[in-house]
Amino acid sequence: MSADQLSSTFHALADPTRRAILGSLTSGEKTVSDLAEPFDMTMPAITKHLKVLEKAHLIERSREAQYRPCKLQPEPLKAIDEWMEQYRRFFEASFDRLEDYLKQIQTKEGDDANQ
Amino acid sequence: MSADQLSSTFHALADPTRRAILGSLTSGEKTVSDLAEPFDMTMPAITKHLKVLEKAHLIERSREAQYRPCKLQPEPLKAIDEWMEQYRRFFEASFDRLEDYLKQIQTKEGDDANQ
Repeated sequence: MSADQLSSTFHALADPTRRAILGSLTSGEKTVSDLAEPFDMTMPAITKHLKVLEKAHLIERSREAQYRPCKLQPEPLKAIDEWMEQYRRFFEASFDRLEDYLKQIQTKEGDDANQ
Repeated sequence: MSADQLSSTFHALADPTRRAILGSLTSGEKTVSDLAEPFDMTMPAITKHLKVLEKAHLIERSREAQYRPCKLQPEPLKAIDEWMEQYRRFFEASFDRLEDYLKQIQTKEGDDANQ
């Protein structure tokens, strides 16, 4: 996946409404009206968000049915997941440091209790 | 982590230069000049990118040394990794469909060879 596709995916995800729309599509295909329902937004505003998601290939709108339901396309998210791989050892390192810190506190508390 | 923090992280990552800067920090702390070196950019342009990464808490600039080295802060990336969890079954489902398709092709090729 090209650098520009990754940028386009990250840009599309940098908005809470667009992330909520994606989340809503995890339960299956939905029409634009279904997707608009939980948000206090105009249809043009929702359509604009859908266009950003579609351009980033995060959703696909069916060309068959007249109401053109939207469907989640997970491939760009998988690309982010793969990009993330190089950083996972840093999460684990942070977690190990936290664990060491908690062990130190427990040891200290044990020592204090024995005094 | 708040919705706005996630948006801020995704926004910061929606740029290939900023992702390259983060990647460069996986090998350790670096000064602004070190980070600027591989890019054909002015120092103010690099500084602007660093400010976006700093605002998103993806990097931290030391206040101790005069040259203020930059350090990777993996916590916001971990938050994205956790957000991604709800979508992982979709990656796996796509992979299963690909595997089924490949099996079908192999079966068909086997049948063709036996004819």
